[in-house]
Amino acid sequence: MDNEQLRQLLGNLHDQSLSVDEALKQLRDLPFKDLGFAKIDHHRALRKGYPEVIFCQSKTPEQVVRIAEAQIEHGETIYGTRAGSEVLGAVEKAIADVEIDRLGRCFWKKSPHWKPREKVRGEIVVCAAGTADMNVSLEAQHTVEILGHPCTALNDVGVAGIHRLFAHREVLEKASVIIAIAGMEGALPSVIAGYVSCPVIGVPTSVGYGAHLGGMVPLFAMLNSCSAGLTVVNIDNGFGAACGAVAINDCRGT
Amino acid sequence: MDNEQLRQLLGNLHDQSLSVDEALKQLRDLPFKDLGFAKIDHHRALRKGYPEVIFCQSKTPEQVVRIAEAQIEHGETIYGTRAGSEVLGAVEKAIADVEIDRLGRCFWKKSPHWKPREKVRGEIVVCAAGTADMNVSLEAQHTVEILGHPCTALNDVGVAGIHRLFAHREVLEKASVIIAIAGMEGALPSVIAGYVSCPVIGVPTSVGYGAHLGGMVPLFAMLNSCSAGLTVVNIDNGFGAACGAVAINDCRGT
Amino acid sequence: MDNEQLRQLLGNLHDQSLSVDEALKQLRDLPFKDLGFAKIDHHRALRKGYPEVIFCQSKTPEQVVRIAEAQIEHGETIYGTRAGSEVLGAVEKAIADVEIDRLGRCFWKKSPHWKPREKVRGEIVVCAAGTADMNVSLEAQHTVEILGHPCTALNDVGVAGIHRLFAHREVLEKASVIIAIAGMEGALPSVIAGYVSCPVIGVPTSVGYGAHLGGMVPLFAMLNSCSAGLTVVNIDNGFGAACGAVAINDCRGT
Amino acid sequence: MDNEQLRQLLGNLHDQSLSVDEALKQLRDLPFKDLGFAKIDHHRALRKGYPEVIFCQSKTPEQVVRIAEAQIEHGETIYGTRAGSEVLGAVEKAIADVEIDRLGRCFWKKSPHWKPREKVRGEIVVCAAGTADMNVSLEAQHTVEILGHPCTALNDVGVAGIHRLFAHREVLEKASVIIAIAGMEGALPSVIAGYVSCPVIGVPTSVGYGAHLGGMVPLFAMLNSCSAGLTVVNIDNGFGAACGAVAINDCRGT
Amino acid sequence: MDNEQLRQLLGNLHDQSLSVDEALKQLRDLPFKDLGFAKIDHHRALRKGYPEVIFCQSKTPEQVVRIAEAQIEHGETIYGTRAGSEVLGAVEKAIADVEIDRLGRCFWKKSPHWKPREKVRGEIVVCAAGTADMNVSLEAQHTVEILGHPCTALNDVGVAGIHRLFAHREVLEKASVIIAIAGMEGALPSVIAGYVSCPVIGVPTSVGYGAHLGGMVPLFAMLNSCSAGLTVVNIDNGFGAACGAVAINDCRGT
Amino acid sequence: MDNEQLRQLLGNLHDQSLSVDEALKQLRDLPFKDLGFAKIDHHRALRKGYPEVIFCQSKTPEQVVRIAEAQIEHGETIYGTRAGSEVLGAVEKAIADVEIDRLGRCFWKKSPHWKPREKVRGEIVVCAAGTADMNVSLEAQHTVEILGHPCTALNDVGVAGIHRLFAHREVLEKASVIIAIAGMEGALPSVIAGYVSCPVIGVPTSVGYGAHLGGMVPLFAMLNSCSAGLTVVNIDNGFGAACGAVAINDCRGT
Amino acid sequence: MDNEQLRQLLGNLHDQSLSVDEALKQLRDLPFKDLGFAKIDHHRALRKGYPEVIFCQSKTPEQVVRIAEAQIEHGETIYGTRAGSEVLGAVEKAIADVEIDRLGRCFWKKSPHWKPREKVRGEIVVCAAGTADMNVSLEAQHTVEILGHPCTALNDVGVAGIHRLFAHREVLEKASVIIAIAGMEGALPSVIAGYVSCPVIGVPTSVGYGAHLGGMVPLFAMLNSCSAGLTVVNIDNGFGAACGAVAINDCRGT
Amino acid sequence: MDNEQLRQLLGNLHDQSLSVDEALKQLRDLPFKDLGFAKIDHHRALRKGYPEVIFCQSKTPEQVVRIAEAQIEHGETIYGTRAGSEVLGAVEKAIADVEIDRLGRCFWKKSPHWKPREKVRGEIVVCAAGTADMNVSLEAQHTVEILGHPCTALNDVGVAGIHRLFAHREVLEKASVIIAIAGMEGALPSVIAGYVSCPVIGVPTSVGYGAHLGGMVPLFAMLNSCSAGLTVVNIDNGFGAACGAVAINDCRGT
Repeated sequence: MDNEQLRQLLGNLHDQSLSVDEALKQLRDLPFKDLGFAKIDHHRALRKGYPEVIFCQSKTPEQVVRIAEAQIEHGETIYGTRAGSEVLGAVEKAIADVEIDRLGRCFWKKSPHWKPREKVRGEIVVCAAGTADMNVSLEAQHTVEILGHPCTALNDVGVAGIHRLFAHREVLEKASVIIAIAGMEGALPSVIAGYVSCPVIGVPTSVGYGAHLGGMVPLFAMLNSCSAGLTVVNIDNGFGAACGAVAINDCRGT
Repeated sequence: MDNEQLRQLLGNLHDQSLSVDEALKQLRDLPFKDLGFAKIDHHRALRKGYPEVIFCQSKTPEQVVRIAEAQIEHGETIYGTRAGSEVLGAVEKAIADVEIDRLGRCFWKKSPHWKPREKVRGEIVVCAAGTADMNVSLEAQHTVEILGHPCTALNDVGVAGIHRLFAHREVLEKASVIIAIAGMEGALPSVIAGYVSCPVIGVPTSVGYGAHLGGMVPLFAMLNSCSAGLTVVNIDNGFGAACGAVAINDCRGT
Repeated sequence: MDNEQLRQLLGNLHDQSLSVDEALKQLRDLPFKDLGFAKIDHHRALRKGYPEVIFCQSKTPEQVVRIAEAQIEHGETIYGTRAGSEVLGAVEKAIADVEIDRLGRCFWKKSPHWKPREKVRGEIVVCAAGTADMNVSLEAQHTVEILGHPCTALNDVGVAGIHRLFAHREVLEKASVIIAIAGMEGALPSVIAGYVSCPVIGVPTSVGYGAHLGGMVPLFAMLNSCSAGLTVVNIDNGFGAACGAVAINDCRGT
Repeated sequence: MDNEQLRQLLGNLHDQSLSVDEALKQLRDLPFKDLGFAKIDHHRALRKGYPEVIFCQSKTPEQVVRIAEAQIEHGETIYGTRAGSEVLGAVEKAIADVEIDRLGRCFWKKSPHWKPREKVRGEIVVCAAGTADMNVSLEAQHTVEILGHPCTALNDVGVAGIHRLFAHREVLEKASVIIAIAGMEGALPSVIAGYVSCPVIGVPTSVGYGAHLGGMVPLFAMLNSCSAGLTVVNIDNGFGAACGAVAINDCRGT
Repeated sequence: MDNEQLRQLLGNLHDQSLSVDEALKQLRDLPFKDLGFAKIDHHRALRKGYPEVIFCQSKTPEQVVRIAEAQIEHGETIYGTRAGSEVLGAVEKAIADVEIDRLGRCFWKKSPHWKPREKVRGEIVVCAAGTADMNVSLEAQHTVEILGHPCTALNDVGVAGIHRLFAHREVLEKASVIIAIAGMEGALPSVIAGYVSCPVIGVPTSVGYGAHLGGMVPLFAMLNSCSAGLTVVNIDNGFGAACGAVAINDCRGT
Repeated sequence: MDNEQLRQLLGNLHDQSLSVDEALKQLRDLPFKDLGFAKIDHHRALRKGYPEVIFCQSKTPEQVVRIAEAQIEHGETIYGTRAGSEVLGAVEKAIADVEIDRLGRCFWKKSPHWKPREKVRGEIVVCAAGTADMNVSLEAQHTVEILGHPCTALNDVGVAGIHRLFAHREVLEKASVIIAIAGMEGALPSVIAGYVSCPVIGVPTSVGYGAHLGGMVPLFAMLNSCSAGLTVVNIDNGFGAACGAVAINDCRGT
Repeated sequence: MDNEQLRQLLGNLHDQSLSVDEALKQLRDLPFKDLGFAKIDHHRALRKGYPEVIFCQSKTPEQVVRIAEAQIEHGETIYGTRAGSEVLGAVEKAIADVEIDRLGRCFWKKSPHWKPREKVRGEIVVCAAGTADMNVSLEAQHTVEILGHPCTALNDVGVAGIHRLFAHREVLEKASVIIAIAGMEGALPSVIAGYVSCPVIGVPTSVGYGAHLGGMVPLFAMLNSCSAGLTVVNIDNGFGAACGAVAINDCRGT
Repeated sequence: MDNEQLRQLLGNLHDQSLSVDEALKQLRDLPFKDLGFAKIDHHRALRKGYPEVIFCQSKTPEQVVRIAEAQIEHGETIYGTRAGSEVLGAVEKAIADVEIDRLGRCFWKKSPHWKPREKVRGEIVVCAAGTADMNVSLEAQHTVEILGHPCTALNDVGVAGIHRLFAHREVLEKASVIIAIAGMEGALPSVIAGYVSCPVIGVPTSVGYGAHLGGMVPLFAMLNSCSAGLTVVNIDNGFGAACGAVAINDCRGT
């Protein structure tokens, strides 16, 4: 139901070619398709600017495949995150030409209509502190890419050897948005946000042990950062950070 | 020490009109002024795009006044946040023509050179769920304004009567960035982020009681939001949200 | 030991056809059957209005089967919740004609005397925010049904696409009680309770990740809801919510 | 804006005596009055069945008085909860004939149109475990009474001397809904819910010390109750429990 | 090194048949045997009144067997708790005539010198609230028995059907000490301690789910009990409760 | 209502000099006196072996005085704990010859019938780790004394200078029960319980700072003690520890 | 009781100029003086290398003064920490020539025998991240100084403007031990420990707000530091860090 | 890039045999080798005094092997910690002559240039409270040894039988630094730090159950120790404690 269809319906109401009751009834037939266990919102792409992503964690392989197939049937790009090996196996078998990243735990298949976003502010830079944060970094990178934005990744640039990070000064300085991913004490986003002037989104990860509280420590450390302006997403939420970065990097209205 | 001065110094080094040792020593005389208890970074304005703000909480009134006076002497805009009534009293007495907002707990005095930011993306909208979140909302509004960006505020638009929020649909739809402030169960940012496509920054507040954990409940609720792309700052951190919003709203490089 | 038997015993005492000591001794022979490891309270059905349900979690398959068999022998409806696959396998093998729902993790076999509750207020509506909350929703639905009350289910109606929920406005408006199930930030019960005037019971679920604390976040969010009158049960406790709803929906005394 | 007014507006639209744009604009003028810091929803009474209550905690005395005066002007019953002594003083001075309960921390003034609810299921019973839980009990009692329902209170009936509770067996047995309030280990609601068959709402209180976690211990104990069907509200939330009880006790549709 | 040996050594020192240095050296040869990874304190039996128990959790099967063999060699009773199936298998194979309780996760073999404690106050009663608390109950029972005290067990006597407990009134009333074991909301020890006058030791268990915090909820509930005099041990610590009960039940000095 | 009165009533019932209804009605007139806000259980002394103690925290001075006066009128010993200075002032003024300990925050006045407990096992020893734990120690000492048991106190015997404790070896060794009070890391009870063979009750205190969690750290440390048999009460609960100790020290049935 | 006295006593025992019983009795007269509420260990200076410090928090002014006077009488240096203004006032009045630092909340008076530690490794450097951490920094500095070690302080060198810290490179590089104090996200110790090779002790402070958990966030961040070798003390524990640093800096045995 | 190379580069710049731009470019080629997923810092050995250790947890076997091979190629000592059995298997197969400790979960292969540290203060003593803490103890011991320092281990010397510890008095007294490892209530480091005057580093372990919080209890207990000067590392962090101990034991500058 796009804006044109709505205007037409309202015209008909005013023309009396439609009764009030009938118009209301039509409006109620909202554009989501009921699969019984999951309602897919095909028009979300228009409303929010990107397709409905399949969050696979705690869905069965069968559920994921059925949702993906319904989206493909509708001509949409499919993109699944947090997919365990069982889900990835089922998807690989069921959907021809699907692309899969096992370390990043995601899969995707672009629709024929997919094209890169034309008007963007610049490049989104994804920095990860350690080798063990790679899976979150990959989730963020794939999300940015599927949503049509340019992306650069810097891995293993944590604060224990801070010269490694500053070797990439130029990449940081010309970034449009930076996603900074770190586990342990989570200091990387603070250091970056104290250095650059573009928006920085921190992603705490569950990498650590002992008094690490499953990632709560880097989460709280980022929220308490001395570097004003740093904003934060949930633990391990590379996907959410990418969505936030894309919203910033998007030149809407131009 | 701005870029020109640096280039001159490097020239002198290459000309041998300066020894390596001497050049290094000069570089080390970094542009901060030591007051004994607090080092003020006067060049921060250049590096980060905004002046060093005085976070007054846990500073004595005397310390705050001395920092503010040093900044004024240097020709800078002063801006203090989290100022209790004792600090505000001292500032009011010591600094001529200072402006004060008691509910928002801040004070400011713009330098003669202050001017609004010329190139911005659009308007920053500050939404607060309840009357009791007003102080955080005011802190965010003043910060946006001091940093030279346009700001609109919507108060008492919480989800218990969600029609109140949607009465302001147009304001929300044309915002460049939205700061969404909420205590209690912290649902407002989720609802807004599910509706608009611009970046949304959530600010949990300490307003609530019982199993509210001093604001941890709305903080965690926002981090777990179903609305992908929502980013979050610390509890009651209106200042940090404003800095994040300004970084997004700024047309750097143009 | 029902009321009639009690009156008879008291009569005998007053008639002196029974000594005080003997009467006390008979009263002490309470109507529970000792299986050694679990005492089954067959008269609970009379006292509380519904049969003793077998909470299978942390019971061995053998224990569950023995309890169920004892109940069947006594002519009672059996109903087991939180039954893992091993327990369900044992039950299926041991008890003829038992019904099983693997996703909802429960089994039941109605006694020949089972009949729907005759006098109820109306329909109990079970709403679940996401596909992943389905198991909790099924537990609630089966419990309502076994206890003899009418039940309607709405799945995947979470707040990220709130139009999906409001497409079911009519169902919500004529409900007698609503059970609202949600993980993540747990906003669904708040939104529903702000909309309808019937009693709403919130069920937080353990669906989520990162700073989700195994369901504590939606639990706390619901407890802090701005929508006054919302009451809450334990995380994933579809069974408890159903019992609460049935107590409300029951026309006792009529 | 009630249903009749809406039908009239829709008629005008269909008659073309109103343009679509004009009709939309009128619909948007929602029935809340903007006081700048708090939007009062005068029609809430119709939608939810009870007036908008003033939650005074974290509002200034001036804000509370202005909200109350606006409600009185509109002919509504006023009712304020969580009012500290300063707020109560201001209200007492500003509003003629207001009634005040200092221990229960609330005030009220019924509108001339106030009348008891005509069709209710029965009596709401409010039980409190200890003398120190009295303030929460009073908040619940006043709320039930203002909302027009009959109320009976049982105080100091905690489980340490459980015979005190059972001395009131008859009151419990004929209750329509029971609100059970307890601090310390919070066992009272469990015991009551194991005894009666009507709905029971538990209210944990912040009364206790040491490893009491400000009321989290009785809250969690109630959520883990062995007595299925018990539902719970936030710590010290007598008001919320009363709203929940009233929703249950209300004979809607009759 | 018992008291007689000590007196002899001191005699020798005073007689100068021993140099001070030599006496000190002998004193230092404390009566524990070094197995490399665990020092066994054979004289603990004398000092504390019971043998050193093997806490098997986080020990390898080999370690457990070697410790047990060393104790047997020394003529001691062996007793192991928290033994997983792998450990129990190894023990069964290595040690002739060892006794094993798989549900209680323990094993024992009494030394030929074992005999029941002659002078005790009375009987130790172990009450468990639910079927799922049986393993903790068995650990407590075996410990009491191995330490030579008389023990009676009451299972499945939780507060949801409190008449089940009171059917055993006589057992409770003549107990010397009561160990009360409960998961969920942990109300059983409170109820018992409010009823009897003998010492009661509460044991919270990890049985529960959702906001149960792995047993922290019944632990905290017991600590906050209204029944003064109730003391508590760690979650699932049936062994510790039994040791505490035995210390109370022991007629030392008589 | 003591046993004799009960036997008489039962006799009357059997004699038919009393109808069943009448007998039940009399039984229901339980021996507690209703003051409106607090029900005093005068027969508790018989049932539990000690008088009802007034826990003053969160009671008003007026409430405390009224409860105390009602107890005195009934010929009972009064004893109040957790009494702030305001309560103590009111009590001192209202009740002649009352005794007060301001540091221990309690007051008492023995009834003329008070006498020391005749048959006890031995002496209760109260050990406190630091000067700052003195108030908890005094609460425990006074409680033991009021309940009629002999008491010895050892103060400032914490583990930082463990020789201070062992200088009192003899007192420890002949104790009947030991109450061990400690804040900070709470190691004292562990050390004592590892040394003596009599029952030891640990009392964690809220003395400490930083990562002390208001006493949760010593509480958890005591629960995790390597010294099996140590039992624990709530933080700062000197009263509860004394009640537990008295139950152990009491020679019931002799 | 020093080593010489001990040797003499042992000599006497061996000479039989002392009976065993008498020798034991003398050994038991340990060198602490009992003030009733606090046992002062005058020989601690010998055993641990520094005097017993008076931790004033939760002691009354009278208690502090009496302890200090007893120490002075004994010829010892006095040093009190965590002294509130009331305590400082009492001390100032009672003890001639006492020195006081109100911001650092401590007082001291060196004994005539006080002298700086002769053999130390080098200089102890105390770094504090912000102006608000000054009180903890002062506590650490005074402690180092009283214990006789050389101390240098660097204030306001937090990571938000990390160039401020590195301007002091030379001080850091020649330090013997570094105490790094930080609130907020607590990143300073990590950064320093990643830079220098000497031992670094981190001190988290309670400076911060929102999701700061009273200093738990910087505490946990430091414990999770990527910079291996960093050790940590309790929140705000400048005193403890100084004691740890002094133990490291001390050239014992030389 | 060592100091000599740097001086040469600066010489060239001053000689004008190098342009400023070129010199900067060379400086930027920092001495780390990029493996794509992990940047190895070969010069760390010079800067911090020990090689980069491979923290294997959350790295794949392939990643660990590749990092180790790159280090060997560079002539460095390799040392991996937290290596699960899968990683150890891969390392054993890939790297000739590697040494492995399965209980300590680590592997190492010294470079031909490895030699013990020449100038050290003394011996590092590693004490572990229980058999179950052995793995943490071994991690600490191997780390000390690889870093070239002398090491002595004392196992199973926990406080439940404190005489076991004091049997090793002499070892403790001549230690240069002590690493004290304990789970359960974590009292061992407190006791040792109260006894010796050398620096003590506490390591809490995750050994325990019930209210043990995965090692948080001993962690907090150590942070709250009465024994001033004790410093602490993260739970189970034997490696970090060893690094801290080595930094203390190292005679730098001599």
